[in-house]
Amino acid sequence: MFRASVITLFPEMFPGPLGLSLAGRALGEAWALETHLLRDFATGKHRAVDDTPAGGGPGMVMKADVVARAIDHASPEGDPRPRLFMSPRGRPLTQTQVRELAAGPGAVILCGRFEGVDERVIEARGLQEVSIGDYILSGGELGALVLLDAVVRLLPGVMGHAESGSEESFETGLLEYPHYTRPQLFEGRPIPEVLVSGDHAKIAKWRRAEAERITRERRPDLWAKKQG
Amino acid sequence: MFRASVITLFPEMFPGPLGLSLAGRALGEAWALETHLLRDFATGKHRAVDDTPAGGGPGMVMKADVVARAIDHASPEGDPRPRLFMSPRGRPLTQTQVRELAAGPGAVILCGRFEGVDERVIEARGLQEVSIGDYILSGGELGALVLLDAVVRLLPGVMGHAESGSEESFETGLLEYPHYTRPQLFEGRPIPEVLVSGDHAKIAKWRRAEAERITRERRPDLWAKKQG
Repeated sequence: MFRASVITLFPEMFPGPLGLSLAGRALGEAWALETHLLRDFATGKHRAVDDTPAGGGPGMVMKADVVARAIDHASPEGDPRPRLFMSPRGRPLTQTQVRELAAGPGAVILCGRFEGVDERVIEARGLQEVSIGDYILSGGELGALVLLDAVVRLLPGVMGHAESGSEESFETGLLEYPHYTRPQLFEGRPIPEVLVSGDHAKIAKWRRAEAERITRERRPDLWAKKQG
Repeated sequence: MFRASVITLFPEMFPGPLGLSLAGRALGEAWALETHLLRDFATGKHRAVDDTPAGGGPGMVMKADVVARAIDHASPEGDPRPRLFMSPRGRPLTQTQVRELAAGPGAVILCGRFEGVDERVIEARGLQEVSIGDYILSGGELGALVLLDAVVRLLPGVMGHAESGSEESFETGLLEYPHYTRPQLFEGRPIPEVLVSGDHAKIAKWRRAEAERITRERRPDLWAKKQG
């Protein structure tokens, strides 16, 4: 079973959206989820989890010692699971990494808040920084939910059909071709004739050409990578 | 007030994580959220929202007529808000787009499920496809939550300080420099000396160099864009 351990200041955000839909039905069977409240690992009268940044600057920094204690509790030595830290500084999450995670034993996920986390605990505990995109969120929790949703849907027994068309498309490095379904005519717009021709070779060719056109138009970066 | 209207098969996923933390406290003041259950706009005995793809293939496609009725209800003619469709085929969400959305009147957000949405309603209703990253989720709901979290934290009155350091960093096209806070020594690792020197010019220079190093190492794509 895929085991996720999430370290967060907002355990009540989990499983959240993942408790519904297919992921929710598979919770406890295909995967397990536990949360650890970061504040439980703070010490001192005020149980502070953060402090002002060395060298000055805006915001607060999550303390190395508090984070280290939480990680050591959630993921004792010998735990084979990767330790991830959701952060806009991380390497961008890809479907390849999602697939690798889904094939493994689980993940320990640290959700950051405030300005960041003390660099020394990132190094000392071997945290892999993962970014879900080039935008800034109020914390790492939504990133963790996104990562887990992407992983969980690939676990055996979660989805009806293991492979979806969008997946195949991503694997080939292309965005997906356009979809159509009944009615044949919608507000004067017909379904493209080729799709109702019954000629499977022609349909496959048309879809491939459309996927290439859309990728070129919308994602010149992906298109260049494909050509390279 | 920023007004978000979400069209979804899972309205119970909203506000979800956004109902907690700072975004939750600002809900109803800095921003408003309404959800529309897509199934309410289906017709026929079975209230089907999807049908098999024209031309064959895996999965189901969301019906153009059902989606059109939901959009026309949530966003009548004259509504100035952009209509977004969360989809891995979309243009990648950036902090620039987040900032533009936050400066506007709100957003109408269609969350896809299944294999996709009939292309004709995307065209007919002028939906902008937005992707939060190059991975596949079980539906558009988490994408919508991510987009809204990124936008809401920028709205006036939501965060204590409007500008954060990570933001400034992103604006300059660099990943953020490493953070440190007390204690001075963590498991034998000291805070870098420059940060406790009190020399603000030297600190700024060190941080800039570190941000550049991290960007080069982790995101050659961002670094190349910056140089170009």
